[in-house]
Amino acid sequence: MRWCDRPRRGFLSRFPTLYTSIVDAEIIAIGSELLTPYKQDTNSLFLTERLNPLGIEVRFKSVVGDRRSDLVSVARIALSRAGLIIFMGGLGPTEDDLTRECVAEALGVELRRDPDLIAGLYKRFARFGSSMTPNNERQADVLAGAEVLPNPNGSAPGQFLRTLSAGHEVMVVLLPGPPHELKPMFDAEVAARLRSRNQKEFIAGRHLRVAMMGESLCDSRIAPIYTRHKEVETTILAGAGDISLHLRARAASQALAEQRVDTLAEELEDALDEHVYSSKGESLEQVAGYFLQLRGASVAVAESCTGGLISERITSVPGSSRFFLGGAVAYSNELKSQFAGVSPQMLEDYGAVSPQVARALAEGIRARCGSTYGIGVTGIAGPAGGTAEKPVGLVYHAVADGKNSEVVERKFLGDRERVRAWAAQQALDMLRRRLMKQ
Amino acid sequence: MRWCDRPRRGFLSRFPTLYTSIVDAEIIAIGSELLTPYKQDTNSLFLTERLNPLGIEVRFKSVVGDRRSDLVSVARIALSRAGLIIFMGGLGPTEDDLTRECVAEALGVELRRDPDLIAGLYKRFARFGSSMTPNNERQADVLAGAEVLPNPNGSAPGQFLRTLSAGHEVMVVLLPGPPHELKPMFDAEVAARLRSRNQKEFIAGRHLRVAMMGESLCDSRIAPIYTRHKEVETTILAGAGDISLHLRARAASQALAEQRVDTLAEELEDALDEHVYSSKGESLEQVAGYFLQLRGASVAVAESCTGGLISERITSVPGSSRFFLGGAVAYSNELKSQFAGVSPQMLEDYGAVSPQVARALAEGIRARCGSTYGIGVTGIAGPAGGTAEKPVGLVYHAVADGKNSEVVERKFLGDRERVRAWAAQQALDMLRRRLMKQ
Repeated sequence: MRWCDRPRRGFLSRFPTLYTSIVDAEIIAIGSELLTPYKQDTNSLFLTERLNPLGIEVRFKSVVGDRRSDLVSVARIALSRAGLIIFMGGLGPTEDDLTRECVAEALGVELRRDPDLIAGLYKRFARFGSSMTPNNERQADVLAGAEVLPNPNGSAPGQFLRTLSAGHEVMVVLLPGPPHELKPMFDAEVAARLRSRNQKEFIAGRHLRVAMMGESLCDSRIAPIYTRHKEVETTILAGAGDISLHLRARAASQALAEQRVDTLAEELEDALDEHVYSSKGESLEQVAGYFLQLRGASVAVAESCTGGLISERITSVPGSSRFFLGGAVAYSNELKSQFAGVSPQMLEDYGAVSPQVARALAEGIRARCGSTYGIGVTGIAGPAGGTAEKPVGLVYHAVADGKNSEVVERKFLGDRERVRAWAAQQALDMLRRRLMKQ
Repeated sequence: MRWCDRPRRGFLSRFPTLYTSIVDAEIIAIGSELLTPYKQDTNSLFLTERLNPLGIEVRFKSVVGDRRSDLVSVARIALSRAGLIIFMGGLGPTEDDLTRECVAEALGVELRRDPDLIAGLYKRFARFGSSMTPNNERQADVLAGAEVLPNPNGSAPGQFLRTLSAGHEVMVVLLPGPPHELKPMFDAEVAARLRSRNQKEFIAGRHLRVAMMGESLCDSRIAPIYTRHKEVETTILAGAGDISLHLRARAASQALAEQRVDTLAEELEDALDEHVYSSKGESLEQVAGYFLQLRGASVAVAESCTGGLISERITSVPGSSRFFLGGAVAYSNELKSQFAGVSPQMLEDYGAVSPQVARALAEGIRARCGSTYGIGVTGIAGPAGGTAEKPVGLVYHAVADGKNSEVVERKFLGDRERVRAWAAQQALDMLRRRLMKQ
């Protein structure tokens, strides 16, 4: 979510020690590019999402470059503290792809070059009409005792090894770094192997989302509730007009874990009432689109300072052509008149950034497009263009349905990107609230 | 950048060992929420960007939760392998804010509660009209020997300590987790302290960007060049129609480091010619906007499958009202006619997704808005709506200037989001290339 950038801390309730995880995992991302300012590991979020329902908690994450001694040392540290270690990246054919060798060294096992894998590599290259250089054979090196995980989306296979380290059982997984190779491989090959162990603990999660509510107001309403539910971990993340409540519970069965998060979710939804727009993590535009379809309704948008963002969010939902007719990005005054029928006199009298013009945009675009609802937004995104009377961050939002037009004035703080994100969120939330009330 | 998601590996040339870094850094992000699927450390990218020009290389990154023993152990490991350790987060007033105590324990130094800091905390609370609970006093605990770093944007101060660990000098920095506290504190307090050491090595960077060029074509043109320049590290990241070339060089002076990246950048720009749109990391919409202003020109957009994304990108640039007049998101056929004057007969004859309609959208929106250029895009973003003849991913892009209209057909692979990102990139790049040619 582009507008979620500020974590809220201090809300995080702790798990009672009763529920210590059966398996603690460490995820290790390998690659010097991950130590530059340009590139970040994102695979670990995907893996965590998949591991938690299997009763596996991620306890450490590490990032290390392509330096042999560093990689061996990081692998040794992980072997001393985790029951499941997932190495990502460094499985390619080049000299700085060192994961196989370094993990073998840390584990004290041998690498064996698998003839079947070599044959497969040559076949793969032939299929793409190129001849394989010998350095690619390194990708056929397998940790002694490991199972090979096929990679239909790339040349380097993954590996899965169950072994002993310092007397405790440890599972070691090697996965390729590119997300489009790693994700299908985890789902097809790794999940089932992790599930097959005798699982004694289950984790369930829920994701509630709240729109256009102040963080402190939200917290004051829900803190008395989630602090009572110590069996559920509640993480609160807040962005521009959007608060995410992540609930997680552990229990001895999946049903009990689900019941725990569901009970808390229900109480939170009651307390937050119409501010909650999503009970399973759906986006605001998905929810608005869902209600539009449910009501057989449609929407059109005339936006100025948001510059296309509202239309872009609505049309990001697959199938949105069923409820989105179109919109106008009316930056200049002339186009506010031409596309949404705003009268030049009104623009003259009140200025482009005014409640009157927001309303006229909503009503005009609705009439032009023949939609059930019209959205109009006009404001000053900054950094320039503000005055004492109409400062940067001042935005007017309107929703029209042919009978009632609602206009909301807001003064948003932050830079251009943040003002635009807030304004789009406000407009979509006005539409959502109106649709829910019906 | 939403469309940059696939790292390219194997291109990463290694630094000659001649230039080992004076200081190797480890960045440690603390907080159990960073081990969930929902929240990711992003501060480390900012810190890396700031540390590199100071001649400091990030060698390890770690993420650890709010568990005391884990945090002490991670701190001890860092002390054994890094010359600069930056701890982020866990400085708040609550019970699970353990960074101060755990770092003290790992270092074997005492914590001292600073009376001036306590007074400051009480004052801060009074200023916001609330009374301070005693647990907040923990935020006044300072590592023996550490300098206190003021935090104008939050209650928890940072700390900076120069000490010895296992016989080598180590710098330990504690920073608050929230980005809006961490970033100003680093710039105001930490950067100068790191700079004051006797710097013997400098790092310079450059960021070239390439639009709508195949990855393998790009690599075949530049590999012979960057492999010759072993003194410069080249990282290549590729996304939907966008390739980033990150160059970094180390040297004994800043001037020499700059000269190294500049020399390589020049050779790469020559080889890639008009495909390079940015030589200092500017976005495609910034560059297009820059040329529009330079030529005293303007643009209007009529987009269908991109749903507002092109307008949104153009208007994300501050000051874009000087060159962007407006646009239409013409999802339905009726609106293609109404907003951009596409004739119903043409829509009937060729279908909405056709080169004729793309061209008519570009020419029509240009005429309607009175802009110098018009952009028209129509296509099938998917997942539904494709046919054998017109599959998902088929997009037509047009740019009109009143004399020549150019239409480009592309078949993009990937999901809805990716097709839309590619299509917006293609359209903006067509505009950029036309503007550059003039």
